[in-house]
Amino acid sequence: MPDPATSARPLLEVRLLQEAIGLFARERDWEAFHSPKNLAMALTGEVGELVELFQWLSEDASRGVARDPATARRVRDEIADVLVYLVRLAAVLDIDLDEAVRSKLATNARNYPVERARGNAKKYSQP
Amino acid sequence: MPDPATSARPLLEVRLLQEAIGLFARERDWEAFHSPKNLAMALTGEVGELVELFQWLSEDASRGVARDPATARRVRDEIADVLVYLVRLAAVLDIDLDEAVRSKLATNARNYPVERARGNAKKYSQP
Amino acid sequence: MPDPATSARPLLEVRLLQEAIGLFARERDWEAFHSPKNLAMALTGEVGELVELFQWLSEDASRGVARDPATARRVRDEIADVLVYLVRLAAVLDIDLDEAVRSKLATNARNYPVERARGNAKKYSQP
Amino acid sequence: MPDPATSARPLLEVRLLQEAIGLFARERDWEAFHSPKNLAMALTGEVGELVELFQWLSEDASRGVARDPATARRVRDEIADVLVYLVRLAAVLDIDLDEAVRSKLATNARNYPVERARGNAKKYSQP
Repeated sequence: MPDPATSARPLLEVRLLQEAIGLFARERDWEAFHSPKNLAMALTGEVGELVELFQWLSEDASRGVARDPATARRVRDEIADVLVYLVRLAAVLDIDLDEAVRSKLATNARNYPVERARGNAKKYSQP
Repeated sequence: MPDPATSARPLLEVRLLQEAIGLFARERDWEAFHSPKNLAMALTGEVGELVELFQWLSEDASRGVARDPATARRVRDEIADVLVYLVRLAAVLDIDLDEAVRSKLATNARNYPVERARGNAKKYSQP
Repeated sequence: MPDPATSARPLLEVRLLQEAIGLFARERDWEAFHSPKNLAMALTGEVGELVELFQWLSEDASRGVARDPATARRVRDEIADVLVYLVRLAAVLDIDLDEAVRSKLATNARNYPVERARGNAKKYSQP
Repeated sequence: MPDPATSARPLLEVRLLQEAIGLFARERDWEAFHSPKNLAMALTGEVGELVELFQWLSEDASRGVARDPATARRVRDEIADVLVYLVRLAAVLDIDLDEAVRSKLATNARNYPVERARGNAKKYSQP
């Protein structure tokens, strides 16, 4: 299978989502609140809410978190919240997300060559 | 303009990115590390690195963060890292991101009606 | 044993640390940077670095993290960084940490009565 | 004034708080949940709740956050929550917090010499 990371097609497409979020903010006069600094903080808050859903679970239990419908919904909602602020942050900074992940995946591939990284998730800069 | 949030077309499309990340993890035998619990933590770490880039900047300066090419690149890379772990987390939990954001945007629209929310970013549940 | 949370003596004492941090900031003209908003962000960044040290470890391995001296030192340093920003944040907001934890522990004791909470770390507001 | 960071007296004292938290966990059979990994996550969640209180405020408004009694109380409570998990994490890892901050402040003093750091909060490792 060819590596999708080197595909000529976009790895992701978020234009409509970006427009939807932009419209939502504009209709509520929230644009002044949406500085990159504030959005980075909002992202933190949402990630914190997501992490809370997993903090007392074992890793195994975390894999089965979707089995309980109420929890599954909360996880899905928190992931959506994180994504919304992330996409909004990229939009206000005029960052092309497809280009950003494509470039980062290429860097990761250089930093974690398959042979050295196998079965070892240590950060490449660690001894 | 019709609200993109109610469009029949997907608001976002991440299939190729998901495949690229999945392949990257598989080739390095990292799948065992990628429990939802661990991925939520990894997300935290990356958001922390992103927030660090903005923490001492004024809101105004944060808007112009892309003017310095080195900083612009770091912001872009950190946003990509957050996105990669978020997309991976959704994948291992078998969560459809388009469905998740669509449902969350609908909830947000109910919780923050335009007339009450205008110019006021207070969380809806606060007095 | 009497519950220390109801002791007349302070549960914690951080005055000298607060003074040391305040002096450190003053000598470097960093006081203007130390708004509560910025300090909350700095706290996030440091917590992110701390979490990174644990993210790929099993819970058991996290218990033994101090066995490797280099990792032990990194964990100790990151915990210190978090503590420094937390104490600084309380200082600039003029919050008495002893009073704050005392009041919060009392609230927690009401919200998590021993009989109902035993062996169950679910947040009290959850069903 | 002598630098408190080099004082022979402890910069902070948290023994009673540590005992109070330990007793609280023991009475509820929560010790098994309190692995360092889980506590680092719980710390994240609480920091996220703290950050949410500041995310839409200007830096100036964040300085005056204590003026509204309800908000002041929420800030105080969230700071207490962060502190409780931080002290608990240090306890389960058998880390001496006084030693940890003392050593870290010494490192910071080396990394940020007054002359170079004045009025500039850039991380020392940045160009």
